[in-house]
Amino acid sequence: MNTTIFQEIIDIVGPEHCSREIEELHCYSYDNSKQTFLPDAVVHPDTVEQVANLAKLANTHCIPIVARGAGSGTTGGSLPTQGGIVLSCMRLNRILEIDTDNQIAIVEPGVITGTFQKILQGHKLMYAPDPASLKFCTIGGNVAECAGGPSAIKYGVTKDSIIGLEVVLANGEVLTTGTRTEKGVVGYDLTRLFIGSEGTLGIITKIITRLLPLPEHKETFLLSSTSLQQATEFVAKILQQNILPCTLEYMDKTALQVVSDILPSRLPADIQAMLIIEIDGSRQKVEEQAEHLKRLIAAEKYCNIKQAATEDEIQEIWKARRSISPATHKISPHKTSEDVVVPRSLIPELVGFCEDLAQKLTITILTFGHAGDGNIHVNILAADNSPKEKQKAANAKMALFKKVLSMGGTLSGEHGIGITKSPYISLELNRTSITVMRQLKQLFDKNNIMNPGKIFPSEELHNGPSPV
Amino acid sequence: MNTTIFQEIIDIVGPEHCSREIEELHCYSYDNSKQTFLPDAVVHPDTVEQVANLAKLANTHCIPIVARGAGSGTTGGSLPTQGGIVLSCMRLNRILEIDTDNQIAIVEPGVITGTFQKILQGHKLMYAPDPASLKFCTIGGNVAECAGGPSAIKYGVTKDSIIGLEVVLANGEVLTTGTRTEKGVVGYDLTRLFIGSEGTLGIITKIITRLLPLPEHKETFLLSSTSLQQATEFVAKILQQNILPCTLEYMDKTALQVVSDILPSRLPADIQAMLIIEIDGSRQKVEEQAEHLKRLIAAEKYCNIKQAATEDEIQEIWKARRSISPATHKISPHKTSEDVVVPRSLIPELVGFCEDLAQKLTITILTFGHAGDGNIHVNILAADNSPKEKQKAANAKMALFKKVLSMGGTLSGEHGIGITKSPYISLELNRTSITVMRQLKQLFDKNNIMNPGKIFPSEELHNGPSPV
Repeated sequence: MNTTIFQEIIDIVGPEHCSREIEELHCYSYDNSKQTFLPDAVVHPDTVEQVANLAKLANTHCIPIVARGAGSGTTGGSLPTQGGIVLSCMRLNRILEIDTDNQIAIVEPGVITGTFQKILQGHKLMYAPDPASLKFCTIGGNVAECAGGPSAIKYGVTKDSIIGLEVVLANGEVLTTGTRTEKGVVGYDLTRLFIGSEGTLGIITKIITRLLPLPEHKETFLLSSTSLQQATEFVAKILQQNILPCTLEYMDKTALQVVSDILPSRLPADIQAMLIIEIDGSRQKVEEQAEHLKRLIAAEKYCNIKQAATEDEIQEIWKARRSISPATHKISPHKTSEDVVVPRSLIPELVGFCEDLAQKLTITILTFGHAGDGNIHVNILAADNSPKEKQKAANAKMALFKKVLSMGGTLSGEHGIGITKSPYISLELNRTSITVMRQLKQLFDKNNIMNPGKIFPSEELHNGPSPV
Repeated sequence: MNTTIFQEIIDIVGPEHCSREIEELHCYSYDNSKQTFLPDAVVHPDTVEQVANLAKLANTHCIPIVARGAGSGTTGGSLPTQGGIVLSCMRLNRILEIDTDNQIAIVEPGVITGTFQKILQGHKLMYAPDPASLKFCTIGGNVAECAGGPSAIKYGVTKDSIIGLEVVLANGEVLTTGTRTEKGVVGYDLTRLFIGSEGTLGIITKIITRLLPLPEHKETFLLSSTSLQQATEFVAKILQQNILPCTLEYMDKTALQVVSDILPSRLPADIQAMLIIEIDGSRQKVEEQAEHLKRLIAAEKYCNIKQAATEDEIQEIWKARRSISPATHKISPHKTSEDVVVPRSLIPELVGFCEDLAQKLTITILTFGHAGDGNIHVNILAADNSPKEKQKAANAKMALFKKVLSMGGTLSGEHGIGITKSPYISLELNRTSITVMRQLKQLFDKNNIMNPGKIFPSEELHNGPSPV
């Protein structure tokens, strides 16, 4: 980046809020996908006007501009793969309004999701989406990737909690979408077009969230089973019985083993799977549903249920669950983690398929995740970085994706496409879909400056039918 | 329409499934907006291939093509305002799949919403959206307009129940959007772009709906109040108390008077407003919340609550509520009905404003509707069709819209824009929004054949900034 352009950036945000220093650039070069791409500059705007001026500048000079929250994404969505400007949302971190009467809030993208939730608790309100990284990640990143979390089974994913946005477009114009009311059908639904668009259509500068009353009470259960099949089948059984938990997480034996030293009690040798089940609501309703759940379990031959008695026990259970992903990184730094989704009744089939696949390819595969909505995290653990192991992992990934799609599933439930999944999206989306999406990208971003190279298999933007 | 083109239509659907006869054309010329525009042909395709071929034909010859369900829309969305082809979804009325395990269904657009719901009851499942016309309207029309209904307060509007679509584009290509899984973030969210787009971006040919377990039990309450202010304030109070009704409907005194002979019991002279409140869920939970509701009411000075004891009583209450709209038509054939939305805490202010406005302009205004989500139906009843009364009504409408927008509200919560509200959307959407929407329209429909003349203030399609 030449000095004239950098001077323009300085003129917009001030010299203390931008940098070309290699040490600082490095801090914005990686995310949780474990890949690294150096930007040419990092900028910390403070207002929507500054963001708009930065977009105009980038557009004029055809420089890539990549918005970044906390960099906790797993698919490389915040990586400056083509260099350019990283636009950090660090300073755009104000909670602008909490309207307790109408149960909405207006926040800037750099607000940390967990911080927002803690503040809302003081108002007896809740912003429901709870990605595992909530103490660290930002709501802007959550919206850009449409993050999920355990509570999605009851409360939906990020898109279900967002009713309006302010977005800076590539040409620097500021678009407002949606409403601050629950209902609203004036014109096309542009809000949803931006949610999950991974920064490729514009830069989100304000977010209107829907809030819910904070549930009065919650109970946590740990179900262990000596039959993998039965544990996964039990997921559908619970939901068919009109029990709607706010958590229905699943961990297979391999996943449990990697966190065995964190688990609240010693793992019996014959355990094949565990479920974390949480029920929230009014105390009376929770008790009613808890009784119902226990009756259901009593009828199951291979299952056992334990109700967490103290807050410490609950925290231990969650510590184990949230440690799976980091712990597998320690065992296999070369792991691939896929957040595929299948219709939830088919989870037993998917899990069985993964077991067979691991055996067939002699590779470790573990499965855990949000069983309640069919969103299973399949981790493929290559033994080392050798070409042979890498090939095995690639074969396993491709076989997994093909199986998931043959089951009516999808390649990603909450992590997005970014760069790690973009070579595979034409397995799921046909030519018409990809063509329409490319055309939308081109409509919003003629010069392809907004987080270029993400989502789509090739960076070229076509008007006509795509070659994929 | 010349004979050669009509012959092409015959070749696509067969002679028994299309017509140019004036008697038949007339049946497809009007909707619930009470306006009339004759099409040049009406066609009843049976397959997505036929729809695709019809779109190609229309596109080639630049003939407008307007998809139509039951014509129950109130804003003229299904009217062939520029002539052309009315594509009736009458024969596209199959329920293709009900997946009880995964609680989804796949249906064609011509399925009648109420029929679908009845069939689902047999599976102990529910498709939640319940527009007033549900016994008559089609789910395709509901999706195109993003219909609401009383249950939206708990279960959301149509868009909240739809997870995927099949859409025929103007060029005849068939686009599939979304997934059949609860979660899915692969590529842009095109599903929502089509929901509520009023047939202007493509023709919906398949719909994937999310289903819910049928609630075990429901209780219905009729709250009457001698204070309008207190009745409307009570709406927010209920929701703040963690009671989430599945119905929270409001009717003012004037609305009650027009249906007074249908109401279950004689209307006391001092009643200023009524609320219909319904609570559903497990029997235990309903009883718990009903007790809570009654305790709340006991503390209110001007309110009285009556619990419906029999199914007949429930039906009577609903008959009265659903008759308001037809009954006002009888009193004033020249009525305007607006489905504005305000943040629900501001309902008392809006209702007070309407009372004052009616007095100031010496015109009858009644208010009723979905108080729980702030979606109030404001009916402006002109005394006759004289220029003076028409002007008064127009003045009242404009004053209402400006007030609603100043309160952070929106012009339409569930009826859409169509042709009746299109002159007003630039009051709500700024130039950037309208420009983006027009560009989207042009992207999907270069020749402007898909339900042309709807939503946007002028029929011209701009690339650059819009003049509005």
